[in-house]
Amino acid sequence: MEVMEAIRGRRSIRKFKPDPVGDELMRTVLEAGRWAPSWANTQCPRFVVVRDSEVREKLAQICPGRWSASVRDAPVVLVACAELGKSGWYKGGWVTDKGDWFMFDTALACQNLMLAAYSLGLGTVPIGYFDAKKAARLLDVPQDVQVVLLLPLGWPDEKPKAPLRKELKEVAFAEKYGRPFIP
Amino acid sequence: MEVMEAIRGRRSIRKFKPDPVGDELMRTVLEAGRWAPSWANTQCPRFVVVRDSEVREKLAQICPGRWSASVRDAPVVLVACAELGKSGWYKGGWVTDKGDWFMFDTALACQNLMLAAYSLGLGTVPIGYFDAKKAARLLDVPQDVQVVLLLPLGWPDEKPKAPLRKELKEVAFAEKYGRPFIP
Repeated sequence: MEVMEAIRGRRSIRKFKPDPVGDELMRTVLEAGRWAPSWANTQCPRFVVVRDSEVREKLAQICPGRWSASVRDAPVVLVACAELGKSGWYKGGWVTDKGDWFMFDTALACQNLMLAAYSLGLGTVPIGYFDAKKAARLLDVPQDVQVVLLLPLGWPDEKPKAPLRKELKEVAFAEKYGRPFIP
Repeated sequence: MEVMEAIRGRRSIRKFKPDPVGDELMRTVLEAGRWAPSWANTQCPRFVVVRDSEVREKLAQICPGRWSASVRDAPVVLVACAELGKSGWYKGGWVTDKGDWFMFDTALACQNLMLAAYSLGLGTVPIGYFDAKKAARLLDVPQDVQVVLLLPLGWPDEKPKAPLRKELKEVAFAEKYGRPFIP
């Protein structure tokens, strides 16, 4: 699948078929995450592949209602984590006003994962609204690692329409902020 | 270009030819950012297309030495910004222990931009290490908006090798954190 076709065509999928997702497909998806760029190549993102239905059920219980079904029903939940103290750091300290850049680097990898999954016919939905501390305890995530995102993944059982996007001129500017970029 | 080919083949490019990048190409790249997913479709990322060489020179001066040449020499510097108070919020407040998710959503869009650029033959390099407050003043960025990333963009004048990546089993785990995923 072409890059721009994947970028435009990817939708968040919340309903999944029960069919499993094989290891080879999972490897391709995870490789996509591994190849994302990162702060000075520090590679802070980590991913836990959760297939165990009891663990998925427990993860579903720490999401608000609207999102729990995807976590419960998807054959795989990728749990995106990040090692702290790497991204955004230089010589033992933060070097920007953003502090630790773990959220940024994890998202770069997650976007790769979502695009790769879509190109293989798989659906995903990024879920940030859940109790990350409880997820960390459930998956034995160490203290210096943050749980960032739940990414249910599986074979789509719906074809949602694209949510409305802002116009390009509302989000892209020329030379100064607020001056619309109109090609 | 195929999705996985772009994900694996994209390299950070720090040396650019002086040739300009036309508006139609810029539109395609920016569209890729616009189509990224975001927290409850709140779409916080914004992009300023800087071509003016005097402004690029000023941006170069607020980067540490190693990165300033890319900002000075690339025909375009995309400046990624984010509206605060949207991503990670629900009913007027943050709902997770991560606070505002602007870094996450901006990175999702930036990864799309970098992949789209690469698929068009363009190079980019993400730069987070610079004085974001000075960049904001330079580009008239309002108080409730953060400047996040400088993304020099242009026609590559180098073919760098891929920096070493961690093995898949070091970054991908099965069921529990730290238990290698080996497909």
